[in-house]
Amino acid sequence: MDQKLLQLNAEYARALDDDRLEAWPEFFVEDCLYKVTSADNLKRGMQAGLIYADSRNMLRDRVSALREASIYERQTYRHIVGLPVRLKSDDAEAHCETPFLVVRIMRDGKMDLFATGRYLDRVVEEGGSLKFRERLVVCDSSRFDTLLAIPL
Amino acid sequence: MDQKLLQLNAEYARALDDDRLEAWPEFFVEDCLYKVTSADNLKRGMQAGLIYADSRNMLRDRVSALREASIYERQTYRHIVGLPVRLKSDDAEAHCETPFLVVRIMRDGKMDLFATGRYLDRVVEEGGSLKFRERLVVCDSSRFDTLLAIPL
Amino acid sequence: MDQKLLQLNAEYARALDDDRLEAWPEFFVEDCLYKVTSADNLKRGMQAGLIYADSRNMLRDRVSALREASIYERQTYRHIVGLPVRLKSDDAEAHCETPFLVVRIMRDGKMDLFATGRYLDRVVEEGGSLKFRERLVVCDSSRFDTLLAIPL
Repeated sequence: MDQKLLQLNAEYARALDDDRLEAWPEFFVEDCLYKVTSADNLKRGMQAGLIYADSRNMLRDRVSALREASIYERQTYRHIVGLPVRLKSDDAEAHCETPFLVVRIMRDGKMDLFATGRYLDRVVEEGGSLKFRERLVVCDSSRFDTLLAIPL
Repeated sequence: MDQKLLQLNAEYARALDDDRLEAWPEFFVEDCLYKVTSADNLKRGMQAGLIYADSRNMLRDRVSALREASIYERQTYRHIVGLPVRLKSDDAEAHCETPFLVVRIMRDGKMDLFATGRYLDRVVEEGGSLKFRERLVVCDSSRFDTLLAIPL
Repeated sequence: MDQKLLQLNAEYARALDDDRLEAWPEFFVEDCLYKVTSADNLKRGMQAGLIYADSRNMLRDRVSALREASIYERQTYRHIVGLPVRLKSDDAEAHCETPFLVVRIMRDGKMDLFATGRYLDRVVEEGGSLKFRERLVVCDSSRFDTLLAIPL
């Protein structure tokens, strides 16, 4: 499964960076959990995150909202995803942690570090390919740009 | 081939970061294509790129020119290459996309984000090792430093 | 061993970024060498580094010192580790080089590029898992933040 796990991570990042947002919900199973939060929030046990979705349909709704607001198109992003660490796994599910870094590229060409953090994932196999049952995006920084409503 | 593909990418980046420019053309087959362009240029279908070479000899010429100009030695670079996504492959050739990030380190120690983007590659096997038939370097930003004549 | 090598690198970075410093010496064999230096220093053959430890106990001492000084807790770090290049290996030992990038996240949320460089490693198998006999951390920049006494 490890080769597949690398591919899942690589293709997820590529879909976002290509602005193929409509493909993003398809990386999840229907009954999923997706959250964006900060390391501080997680440490304090706070449930609230910047983004919360507990079904694939909620992810699709978010994509529609982003498309209407056209927020996403003003800049581009580049994800650099590190190596996944497999924390636990059995036949049904794998728990993984994967570090990431996102660079934002503004329309005028300026680049900056937008976010770093780690993905805490529960991954399952569905119909021959791996999908996320849960992806918790834990950002290292608690200072969020207002644009952080974008998927990470 | 996947393990070999990771190695090809890792060794290519290492050659550049070690300033072993003379080794760089050897990652390509003789009848190759190497281009550096921007995402915007690519989207508009513009053929012109910042660097264009359609044979290994042209790559060697570029290395000679860089050595004479001594441009390359004023600073160093560090490539962080992400995971390759295999887009298509048959026995003869693999089409891959691989994200990258390059940090520039100035003589005084200052570091900055120099470039992010993705490699669009056509990879073939030649004499037992993988080589690039084509490497298209698509930078996310269209604002290029004048020094971008260096290989990426 | 390649899959194990990726895991070793991923878990090492994860331990540091999680502030589990006490786990850090356990990635090394007892009779080990750990050094942090710069590319310039290495090129000039200078032995002195910013950090030098030639046994696992010295690494443990350093962790204790860092804990007492509480230096480590003022900010967090995120390692993005690239793909290892295997330089040489036999049954007993593998020589590898692996690029890295470290982002520092300040308490107020500000992020900056803290370090880039490469690990020069000698890796051995001990008790069923891979460990470092030697890890030489070669930073690209010679300008070090005074906080660089932290493990990289």
